[in-house]
Amino acid sequence: MPVRKFALADASLERSPGQDADIFAGNVIDQRHGGPITIGYGRYGPDQSLDETMTVHDVMVVLEGRLTVTGSAGPVTAGPGEIVYMPKGEKVTIRSHAEGAVTAYVTYPHWQEAGG
Amino acid sequence: MPVRKFALADASLERSPGQDADIFAGNVIDQRHGGPITIGYGRYGPDQSLDETMTVHDVMVVLEGRLTVTGSAGPVTAGPGEIVYMPKGEKVTIRSHAEGAVTAYVTYPHWQEAGG
Repeated sequence: MPVRKFALADASLERSPGQDADIFAGNVIDQRHGGPITIGYGRYGPDQSLDETMTVHDVMVVLEGRLTVTGSAGPVTAGPGEIVYMPKGEKVTIRSHAEGAVTAYVTYPHWQEAGG
Repeated sequence: MPVRKFALADASLERSPGQDADIFAGNVIDQRHGGPITIGYGRYGPDQSLDETMTVHDVMVVLEGRLTVTGSAGPVTAGPGEIVYMPKGEKVTIRSHAEGAVTAYVTYPHWQEAGG
């Protein structure tokens, strides 16, 4: 695969599987493209919440807004340009604030294959 | 490892190995922490250039400024919130523009172990 560039508009955002919150995610690179990692964008509406047990290692870069992620060691809150790393095996709650949020994410391995 | 949050200020930025351009990188997660991926921040001065043959898969999220990455398929230019994916094996030139750039990156596997 050659070098590729992506923007939020390249992601087909869909509601995250198994939940009905106003939280949407879309991969731009995943198992369909070969390679070991998934890359995508996420969009969180205001004051939404998602519980998840991590089946993959997930790096979330906050691009807009703010998210609070609560894991086994308590909550962390990240804003634009900040990174939240959610290692495989952690049980997390991801919560958006009043302004919602936009994120870029990278997972290893592919979360759709891991059942995440 | 629990959930962790990082900001640019958490990275100890150092000049990239083997080059003398005004380009600095600092890992916040790498082989010292366990886990399969490296996470870090990069800072590019104005009008800098770096040639590299990718020894790892590298996802670069542009946080500030603009970068042009030229690989085997020609150049792509990315600004804030955009992602450039540089797969392992690609030979790339990364060039900053007049305003410099700040990036977040995720690599698989660890680039310091791969000799990248």
